[in-house]
Amino acid sequence: MGGDFAPANTVAGAVAALRESDGRFSVVLVGPEDRISQELQKPQNRVGGSDVASSWSIAAASQVIEMDDPPTAALKAKRDSSIAVGLTLHKEEKVDAFVSAGNTGAVLSASTLILGRVGGVGRPTIGALLPTGKEPCLLVDAGANVDCRPRHLFEFGVMGSIYVSTMLGRKRPRVALLSIGEEDSKGNEASLEALGLFRKSRLNFVGNVEGRDVLKGDADVIVCDGFVGNILLKFGESIPEFFKSKFLTYASCSIRNKVTAMVARGGLRSVMKELDYQERGGVPLLGVKGVSIIGHGRSTPKAIKNMIYRAEEMVRTRVSTLIGATMLEYGLTETT
Amino acid sequence: MGGDFAPANTVAGAVAALRESDGRFSVVLVGPEDRISQELQKPQNRVGGSDVASSWSIAAASQVIEMDDPPTAALKAKRDSSIAVGLTLHKEEKVDAFVSAGNTGAVLSASTLILGRVGGVGRPTIGALLPTGKEPCLLVDAGANVDCRPRHLFEFGVMGSIYVSTMLGRKRPRVALLSIGEEDSKGNEASLEALGLFRKSRLNFVGNVEGRDVLKGDADVIVCDGFVGNILLKFGESIPEFFKSKFLTYASCSIRNKVTAMVARGGLRSVMKELDYQERGGVPLLGVKGVSIIGHGRSTPKAIKNMIYRAEEMVRTRVSTLIGATMLEYGLTETT
Repeated sequence: MGGDFAPANTVAGAVAALRESDGRFSVVLVGPEDRISQELQKPQNRVGGSDVASSWSIAAASQVIEMDDPPTAALKAKRDSSIAVGLTLHKEEKVDAFVSAGNTGAVLSASTLILGRVGGVGRPTIGALLPTGKEPCLLVDAGANVDCRPRHLFEFGVMGSIYVSTMLGRKRPRVALLSIGEEDSKGNEASLEALGLFRKSRLNFVGNVEGRDVLKGDADVIVCDGFVGNILLKFGESIPEFFKSKFLTYASCSIRNKVTAMVARGGLRSVMKELDYQERGGVPLLGVKGVSIIGHGRSTPKAIKNMIYRAEEMVRTRVSTLIGATMLEYGLTETT
Repeated sequence: MGGDFAPANTVAGAVAALRESDGRFSVVLVGPEDRISQELQKPQNRVGGSDVASSWSIAAASQVIEMDDPPTAALKAKRDSSIAVGLTLHKEEKVDAFVSAGNTGAVLSASTLILGRVGGVGRPTIGALLPTGKEPCLLVDAGANVDCRPRHLFEFGVMGSIYVSTMLGRKRPRVALLSIGEEDSKGNEASLEALGLFRKSRLNFVGNVEGRDVLKGDADVIVCDGFVGNILLKFGESIPEFFKSKFLTYASCSIRNKVTAMVARGGLRSVMKELDYQERGGVPLLGVKGVSIIGHGRSTPKAIKNMIYRAEEMVRTRVSTLIGATMLEYGLTETT
């Protein structure tokens, strides 16, 4: 039931995932049975082949946490929400992963509360894959934790590094700290102290990077607090729209400009697509006991499908267990 | 002597400003006399007309703070730097404004130390004009103060509002606070407390804006701490380069793409120019007793010229005095 277009997009995405699944996994759709069944009746969602039909089921949840509900209050008031029911199924090991395009704050809180934190993790975090001039890089924290202590920033780097090495297959991921200058002396109080922790660690820490370096692709993981991360991500998301409006203004200036713009449109669209996070399919919540993936409220069926694939891969690569083991290795055992 | 291309660009910019000045102002060039004279000898810098020739002079400064010198140490070690000499001339009222494309940290510290803070201002700040879908908006703080208390964020809003109303002629500028959600409940510790101060004030406060709203142009002043501001600005500056590289990749895919890219180039360049801060000519330091404008290290002669014009306008509109009066009005008298 999560997202602005639920249950239409979520069901369509799940069906699309199942069609290409080769029986590797099954999907449990969580929400009001009648509305989900209704979606499944739609011709485009007919799960025809018997192999596919047997690979999905519905778990009833009578309530829905709306996108603009205040997370904590909503979780208290709506005990039978699709978010709470789905995560409880995961906690009880009836499913191996949870995927939602719903209220981000509610999914975050409920995941941490219901699944629990991995030992040694003070603050579970979300990382978002950013396009760059080279390979995508993981920006972590992408908005889960707005006020962070140095120790939390360090944890984000550890978890991000594990995610990138296991999920993207990069050896010794280059971890960088987002700051206002490349020198070790540049930063705010929290980043300066975190830098000391990174320098002492066995991570492949490459130092500070500035705002202008984010899109260069010279780091695999970029660490910042969730306040900065959220603002930067949303700013980035808004750029294609900004260019589109500027380009329309440009086109309206003269016939010549109009012709240029018409020719250029395809090329522009192709380039702008690189900045389109919606197709990417969700951000992983790292540091909880299990797999929880949070999608954009405007997730398309394709994005939902990609989230399901990503969840399956996180189960397979045991990211969560690896995080726990590494935290122990770093002696990060208290969870404050 | 400030900037990566000093004294060539600074002298050329000053000469360009004088040529179009109509005798409204004169320029004092601060630095090693021989190097400045050498620049003035260049054919393109000949200040031919007698009216122009009489409107410039040189103030000798034997030392130069380099772009990568650590600010505080450099200011101590180089007492006869062009930055220190220029600002002292301003302090002694021998000049009405100071303009530099030099070491930002050094200009910031020296301006605050030598000119002093306006009464009621805890933290002088720099604001940068950002392009938006509508009119440019002032992002403040743009990098001067990385760790800010709520009271400082509020001050930035007051000073930004005054700057935008006097310099850009906008009545009752809309002041917004950069945060992670539009609701008053969204933010980090400092922004949440600052929001309370803004809500109680007589500023035209329009609430929180998110990263995705920055380029929309629905606010005239956007307030954040200098850590976030610096990262956001530098990220924005890097976008044209990112698109350029992506567009080159696109063009290299096929002959058809190549033709498209060739046609589109002019349009793209025109649109990207909007994000080019280098032509804009410097950011004002607000909250010091006087006028101090800091330019990009890579300032072109045109940028230097624009900085001089902006300085002249700030002197004329008495922004600094207005800030002091408004701080008093708000009862902001302690300077902590």
